[in-house]
Amino acid sequence: MTQSSYHYDVLVIGAGHAGTEAAAAAARLGAKTALLTSNLDTVGQMSCNPAIGGVAKGQIVREVDALGGLMGHAIDATGIQFRLLNCRKGPAMHSPRAQADKKAYQAYIKHQIEQQQNLDLRQETVIDLLTENVEGQTRVRGVSVVGDALFVAPTVILTTGTFLKAIMHTGEAQTAGGRAGEGTTSGISGALARLGFEVERFKTGTPARLNAKSIDYRNLERQPGDEKPQPFSFLTESLDSSDQLPCHIAHTNHAVHELIRANLKRAPMYSGQINSTGPRYCPSIEDKVVRFADKTSHQLFLEPEGRNTGEVYVNGISTSLPRDVQDQMFAMIEGLQHAQIMRYGYAVEYDFCPPTQLWASMESKRVAGLFLAGQINGTTGYEEAAGQGLIAGLNAARKVAGKEAWVPTRDQAYIGVLVDDLVTAGTDEPYRMFTSRAEYRLLLRQDNADRRLTGVADELGLIDAARRERFQTKLDQMARANQLLKAARCDKIPGDVFLRRSEVDWDEMCRRVEGLGRIDAEAAQQVLYDTKYEGYVTRQKMEVEKQHRLASKRIPATFDYDAIGPLRHEAREKLNRVRPLNLDQAKRISGVTPADLALVLTRLEGKKSNLDQRITKPQE
Amino acid sequence: MTQSSYHYDVLVIGAGHAGTEAAAAAARLGAKTALLTSNLDTVGQMSCNPAIGGVAKGQIVREVDALGGLMGHAIDATGIQFRLLNCRKGPAMHSPRAQADKKAYQAYIKHQIEQQQNLDLRQETVIDLLTENVEGQTRVRGVSVVGDALFVAPTVILTTGTFLKAIMHTGEAQTAGGRAGEGTTSGISGALARLGFEVERFKTGTPARLNAKSIDYRNLERQPGDEKPQPFSFLTESLDSSDQLPCHIAHTNHAVHELIRANLKRAPMYSGQINSTGPRYCPSIEDKVVRFADKTSHQLFLEPEGRNTGEVYVNGISTSLPRDVQDQMFAMIEGLQHAQIMRYGYAVEYDFCPPTQLWASMESKRVAGLFLAGQINGTTGYEEAAGQGLIAGLNAARKVAGKEAWVPTRDQAYIGVLVDDLVTAGTDEPYRMFTSRAEYRLLLRQDNADRRLTGVADELGLIDAARRERFQTKLDQMARANQLLKAARCDKIPGDVFLRRSEVDWDEMCRRVEGLGRIDAEAAQQVLYDTKYEGYVTRQKMEVEKQHRLASKRIPATFDYDAIGPLRHEAREKLNRVRPLNLDQAKRISGVTPADLALVLTRLEGKKSNLDQRITKPQE
Ligand SMILES: Cc1cc2nc3c(=O)[nH]c(=O)nc-3n(C[C@H](O)[C@H](O)[C@H](O)COP(=O)(O)OP(=O)(O)OC[C@H]3O[C@@H](n4cnc5c(N)ncnc54)[C@H](O)[C@@H]3O)c2cc1C
Ligand SMILES: Cc1cc2nc3c(=O)[nH]c(=O)nc-3n(C[C@H](O)[C@H](O)[C@H](O)COP(=O)(O)OP(=O)(O)OC[C@H]3O[C@@H](n4cnc5c(N)ncnc54)[C@H](O)[C@@H]3O)c2cc1C
Repeated sequence: MTQSSYHYDVLVIGAGHAGTEAAAAAARLGAKTALLTSNLDTVGQMSCNPAIGGVAKGQIVREVDALGGLMGHAIDATGIQFRLLNCRKGPAMHSPRAQADKKAYQAYIKHQIEQQQNLDLRQETVIDLLTENVEGQTRVRGVSVVGDALFVAPTVILTTGTFLKAIMHTGEAQTAGGRAGEGTTSGISGALARLGFEVERFKTGTPARLNAKSIDYRNLERQPGDEKPQPFSFLTESLDSSDQLPCHIAHTNHAVHELIRANLKRAPMYSGQINSTGPRYCPSIEDKVVRFADKTSHQLFLEPEGRNTGEVYVNGISTSLPRDVQDQMFAMIEGLQHAQIMRYGYAVEYDFCPPTQLWASMESKRVAGLFLAGQINGTTGYEEAAGQGLIAGLNAARKVAGKEAWVPTRDQAYIGVLVDDLVTAGTDEPYRMFTSRAEYRLLLRQDNADRRLTGVADELGLIDAARRERFQTKLDQMARANQLLKAARCDKIPGDVFLRRSEVDWDEMCRRVEGLGRIDAEAAQQVLYDTKYEGYVTRQKMEVEKQHRLASKRIPATFDYDAIGPLRHEAREKLNRVRPLNLDQAKRISGVTPADLALVLTRLEGKKSNLDQRITKPQE
Repeated sequence: MTQSSYHYDVLVIGAGHAGTEAAAAAARLGAKTALLTSNLDTVGQMSCNPAIGGVAKGQIVREVDALGGLMGHAIDATGIQFRLLNCRKGPAMHSPRAQADKKAYQAYIKHQIEQQQNLDLRQETVIDLLTENVEGQTRVRGVSVVGDALFVAPTVILTTGTFLKAIMHTGEAQTAGGRAGEGTTSGISGALARLGFEVERFKTGTPARLNAKSIDYRNLERQPGDEKPQPFSFLTESLDSSDQLPCHIAHTNHAVHELIRANLKRAPMYSGQINSTGPRYCPSIEDKVVRFADKTSHQLFLEPEGRNTGEVYVNGISTSLPRDVQDQMFAMIEGLQHAQIMRYGYAVEYDFCPPTQLWASMESKRVAGLFLAGQINGTTGYEEAAGQGLIAGLNAARKVAGKEAWVPTRDQAYIGVLVDDLVTAGTDEPYRMFTSRAEYRLLLRQDNADRRLTGVADELGLIDAARRERFQTKLDQMARANQLLKAARCDKIPGDVFLRRSEVDWDEMCRRVEGLGRIDAEAAQQVLYDTKYEGYVTRQKMEVEKQHRLASKRIPATFDYDAIGPLRHEAREKLNRVRPLNLDQAKRISGVTPADLALVLTRLEGKKSNLDQRITKPQE
């Protein structure tokens, strides 16, 4: 046999949400990059819900976009319904979310990847990692693929998602595979173990898909998109609002919950067949019935999977219960009595690498040049995967170029929070992003992601001229608006001071200040928020800095966590279990966020902060 | 475990080209039908070339359409380039062909299936066939699927394509799987063997896919679509001609052929690693280089796989040579020197059931209620699969309703020829359709498929009111035109007689006959052909009938097949090998067509027929 070998700067393994962003970022930086994936027909595939964004996740997508990534463009081009969540709350809570046309989204991502310069997309299944030992240090050298060929590179990014030693469960029935209808890969898990990586197991689940023609929509609540849909990408001028599809809302009921209870012993999670941990905030319907035993109904969102398909995703009823229970469940739900199941729900258990084994650059501490990103790091969600992927791709390319790693800080981006959380505290359950994880969340708004990141992205070489110019125009517009405001006199005070008054809005300012009405909407909004929230932002910064100073503060052994009303359930549970001796230790407990710590600190200091309640009351 | 079971009239296993037509046809007849397939994301997938139709195959698509099938609509809706092949020859040779947007085609077929009444599309992997013995007869009872459930029905149609015990080969490397990136299924093969079916092996291959951005199109010949593209479906009014994409033509050369020769021992076909038979008329590049050793160049058609993808299919270079040879091959071809391979070519070996084990209804002789259609019967091609699928679906539904089977005859449809060839003579190599297989090919034109089949399709319940009405309008128009022609006098003779003159065309008739210009184009064309070719058609019918009468004619042991100039290479080879004693025996040799026999008969009778040369000179 002749063993072929192919040489690159950066190899990315797996073209999911992490892998596509990683490969595109590395290639944008000029690294000769190959993206190897088992099946070209699943590039960018959404394995689970047909939606991008949501609370905190939408912010990540905006950041990925500000850094020149793919996800924002892709959802703008292929979304079928757009909503800005929490839009009645303060701007720090505004979160864009969109339903995607799943297949169109996938095709869009694949095509971007195909067209990207410096990037080769190739159908290859990786079976092993190649390493070498240089002066006592283990370094990655490349990978081997099915068909006896080698891909050789100084950096390799693993983004294989849920595919490592994956087992799917539907009730008692088990099958090997990372997603229904696809295979699993064990070679990489083996290689990681051989190289001394700790490997653990998580699980996640997905609900059934129904055929639209069999759903009776008449008595179901209709959920339309926004009248003025907001794009995800800072480069998208506008979206066509007339072109949106509605979702619908159905409800579980007492009978359904009874049925589930009666069959709990047949759910792999409860029968002991699965004992790995699943995502706390994406619980299966059996988890919900057990954990919220007093609730008699849960909402189910019927989400169309695209414009040209009859498949409907039932958000809220993810399950690993056996098929006969799934059949019966739907038959008891208003509107779904005759629903035809096209695919059954199932759970999947898979290997992941606890991410404390990584540097913040996403490079592994153990094997130089080997980066890990996405679900392989114990996270869940497309957006979390995309954010990590971009950082890994960027830093692999920088490493090849002999440059230092760059990672956003916690006060710069949700992606900074994500990476810092993962590599510092790790995670004992599938990690997803929340606004409550970010202590600087008044800064980390979806609306200002470009102002936080596009400048540095430009320095890093991540963005192109079009984005640079568009961003510069926005900055110019903002400078002009600020100038006009400062120069103006309203009721005898400077315009910028006048605007701070709570009853004054932008329209009024435009009437009062000549030329202000010509500032474009995006820039105007930024100036407005800057002015209105300046005080809060300054206070948040001060409070957070104080927290950092006080991190080493002792916590009495008798401290009563239950007395802190606004403390999240998860944090309360974990703090009660671990009983940390000081705030620093508390901080290292996975799942306890800086925001939780702020509450504890406030309590320790005997006074109440209500800043958060006023502007950003965390609600997912 | 609770074993779920689901009850249907007709179960179809595998949603490829045969399975989707089968399921849709059964459901159109009112049978409660389920289409079970391993992965809903591959419904209607084109595993190989992104094109529908072609010589003789295009005619089948028109017939499938006339019978109310899916394929014609799907390609009209998703085609990216349409051409009527052989349009300078007589109408019997006109063959529509179109490049498809692969993913859009798949999505279109899936959506039609989803919306079809009486039809449930479900993601299920079948692992075994269930049968029972009733009064000494084995009958099918249903299937079992992964996840411990049963689907129960009196009829089951197997359309599992290349997936039975499939092995993929790329040079020395072998993997189990029916298509790159997908699994294989052995359960069904096992079940067939257990039930006493003969099971044999064939192979087929597919070429590499290249990235468009890496192809230098400047020196390649451009092949655009027709200026006036003709739709496939009799219901499609027209196609947008401005919206087509071109293909391009590249060429192999002496150096490429030398390289292949030097590496022949590494091609699984020649190394002995594969010893099953591949499709004669879709040979791999290594086959071409060996079989046509004196040719120094072969054409390669670069076919875009869709509108929104960079993948380009290289028609003409299907191969199972190892990847390093594939890499080198392209590097030597003008325009492809820097071409980036996205997927390598490979060959696949799979089990099929010799189709002589079936009745013409596609029901198996051995197990009542079990039907087989598509590649599992040893055919190759999407169109051949679709045609068989439709017949199997129709007859399964008729069986459930207690009705007799219906199958088109050889003088009614290419599908009739296909089915008759398969069940009468079987096939010793992957069977594809040719015009030369049809002895009545002047009748079996693409333009008159509706006139041959839509009436009977209506009686069978296969078509809807829209098609019935449209067809009736066409008949009315034709009747009106015939009436006008007969009543008119041109140069003192009746219009219909005048029109027979070779120099007279329809435009001239319109000038001469009042009202004829208002007949719509489709009807006018039919009347024109009917009139112009009446004599030929009558003669063909007579000749064929005579052949049938003379089928038992003895062939002398010394008969010289090589002396028959126009005899096809394949027929000559096989007749020389078998040396049949009479024409009836010759007829049963797989690969020897009725048209071949006509030539032999003519020779035996000592005279030369040149009818074929004049109107339908067979050329593929
Ligand atoms: C059943 C299921 C349920 C889910 N439920 C939820 C949920 O409830 N909530 C939520 O937020 N998220 C959920 N997800 C997670 C979401 O799909 C992932 O977070 C996201 O897709 C992770 O992106 P990734 O890029 O890390 O991996 P993926 O998107 O999984 O991509 C991995 C890629 O690697 C490829 N690959 C794997 N092995 C190899 C190999 N050896 N060689 C080459 N290529 C390889 C695969 O083909 C795939 O393309 C679910 C996922 C699954 C499968
Ligand atoms: C590599 C390759 C090369 C080819 N080359 C050529 C060529 O050169 N020329 C040519 O004309 N044709 C070629 N073909 C053939 C063409 O693809 C087929 O003729 C056509 O697709 C056959 O249609 P089908 O419906 O019989 O099977 P398919 O289209 O293969 O569909 C079979 C379906 O059955 C499903 N299935 C399989 N097993 C199970 C199970 N146990 N349970 C549930 N579902 C199951 C599969 O998922 C699939 O959807 C090639 C095919 C392949 C794979």
